Amino acid sequence: MAQRSYLLGLIGEGVRPSLTPPMHEQEGAAQNLGFVYRPIDLTQLHLPASDVGRLLRNGMELGFDAFNITHPCKRTVLEYLDDVHPTAQRLGACNTVLLRNGKLVGYNTDRSGFASGLQFALPNADVQDIVLLGAGGAGAAVADALVGAGVSRLSIIDPEPQRAEELINQLHAAADNEQHLEIRIGTPDEAATWLANATGLVNASPVGMFSHPGMPIPHTALHAQLWVADIVYRPAETLLIQTARALGCAVMPGKAMAVGQAADTFELVTGLSPDRTRMREHLDALIDEEELQGRFKDQA
Amino acid sequence: MAQRSYLLGLIGEGVRPSLTPPMHEQEGAAQNLGFVYRPIDLTQLHLPASDVGRLLRNGMELGFDAFNITHPCKRTVLEYLDDVHPTAQRLGACNTVLLRNGKLVGYNTDRSGFASGLQFALPNADVQDIVLLGAGGAGAAVADALVGAGVSRLSIIDPEPQRAEELINQLHAAADNEQHLEIRIGTPDEAATWLANATGLVNASPVGMFSHPGMPIPHTALHAQLWVADIVYRPAETLLIQTARALGCAVMPGKAMAVGQAADTFELVTGLSPDRTRMREHLDALIDEEELQGRFKDQA
Repeated sequence: MAQRSYLLGLIGEGVRPSLTPPMHEQEGAAQNLGFVYRPIDLTQLHLPASDVGRLLRNGMELGFDAFNITHPCKRTVLEYLDDVHPTAQRLGACNTVLLRNGKLVGYNTDRSGFASGLQFALPNADVQDIVLLGAGGAGAAVADALVGAGVSRLSIIDPEPQRAEELINQLHAAADNEQHLEIRIGTPDEAATWLANATGLVNASPVGMFSHPGMPIPHTALHAQLWVADIVYRPAETLLIQTARALGCAVMPGKAMAVGQAADTFELVTGLSPDRTRMREHLDALIDEEELQGRFKDQA
Repeated sequence: MAQRSYLLGLIGEGVRPSLTPPMHEQEGAAQNLGFVYRPIDLTQLHLPASDVGRLLRNGMELGFDAFNITHPCKRTVLEYLDDVHPTAQRLGACNTVLLRNGKLVGYNTDRSGFASGLQFALPNADVQDIVLLGAGGAGAAVADALVGAGVSRLSIIDPEPQRAEELINQLHAAADNEQHLEIRIGTPDEAATWLANATGLVNASPVGMFSHPGMPIPHTALHAQLWVADIVYRPAETLLIQTARALGCAVMPGKAMAVGQAADTFELVTGLSPDRTRMREHLDALIDEEELQGRFKDQA
């Protein structure tokens, strides 16, 4: 008898070229599973973020097992779920929905994916004073992971800083009783001042994605004493990571988190242990191939 | 790079236990493809047949490549398609929809599946005088295939015989100019009389499926000079096939058509040649396993 098959989707804006679908499909194939993972690109489909609930219900009718949820739906999706795992509830953000027994159940594999990626890429990172760009769904997960890693001062920058305010209580609740934790929130205007004394910078905003190109902060705000992490993994090296590396910063490109998050999702959906090293190699190969194709395209 | 993956569904009533999904998935796996095929059971979902159009559009949004369509949607589906292949158009019935470039395009792989199954199972069948039960979507495809096989007199039985009337012009149009072809239509009351002089009987009604158990005609209407074909393949041996075999009739169980239809669909969707012998072996193994489980269940 064939093993059972798995059907997953990724809902968000600009996800058509995401490498998460082939990364999952390759791990599924390596485990001899029937495995299909489809990008459902709201931009391409001209759909609003609020359609995420409709898409989830339709996916349930059509036999999907799970969806990953990304920008700009990670918060919006919560109102359409039947049940939410405590971690996702605390984060106020959901990036993984399991469809089981006619119910939509929300999880968050962003937090664990960032934490394991940071541990792997920058094991000696000084987490005393960190500037975090972006207070959306991914930003909340990263902030929670940084508190778990022992940050002392966390400066959260967002064009709409009021949406970071609701994060503060959650983060203090997540902190150890013993932990000194100062949290401040501000607009991009504050980034340069706060970065001057920071030990680390994490970009959890969409700026740097192919669909949102550019730098999330002025390059003049960077300095060599910072470590710099990005959660954007496509392009593999965002302008932020390239600029930081050129300045001599220790860097963590987004693919470290991408692999951690995908591996956690795979395990949650299938109950099987993914080979995380193999998934990382798959992602590297996919990125290499894509960049090769890009070069050929440039020459054509 | 992984080969591209394929996502298919089967829309109809009572399709949850269909063996078509695992038959496709096993052939996909044997060809090293990411391959998922989901049953979408209108009965289980409490959806009307008219929802087929909505399900197809939703499937397009969610990245499906194709759907098979079965009872009771094979005719209804035509009104929701952007384009229809000439064979399906002539048959007035569609069992396969490809989703390509934002369009829904309808095909019919029932006709070819029945024709190749009959040729394989009963190569010497006398097709002079055949009684056909059922004038729905599958019945139209079988009738067309029988005309192609050279039938002289075709007697079509349906509880609503008026829906067979529209078939008559189509079948005469499909016949060779040289071919003698007499077509008559009637209700189940005529079955016994017409079968007395017939050479063959084909059941293309849903009677005999798990969801519609029983005999499509009184068993007293059968006789040993008939060959008997069924298009219902689950159970593997319908009450009709069992009864006919016990009487000494040559029989063609539904799985012969099921394999032909599935292989044609697989080829249409993927552009790859399926191994038809392997697919038949897969189906036999699935049926064996199911019947084994059924026996264990009976003992439990």
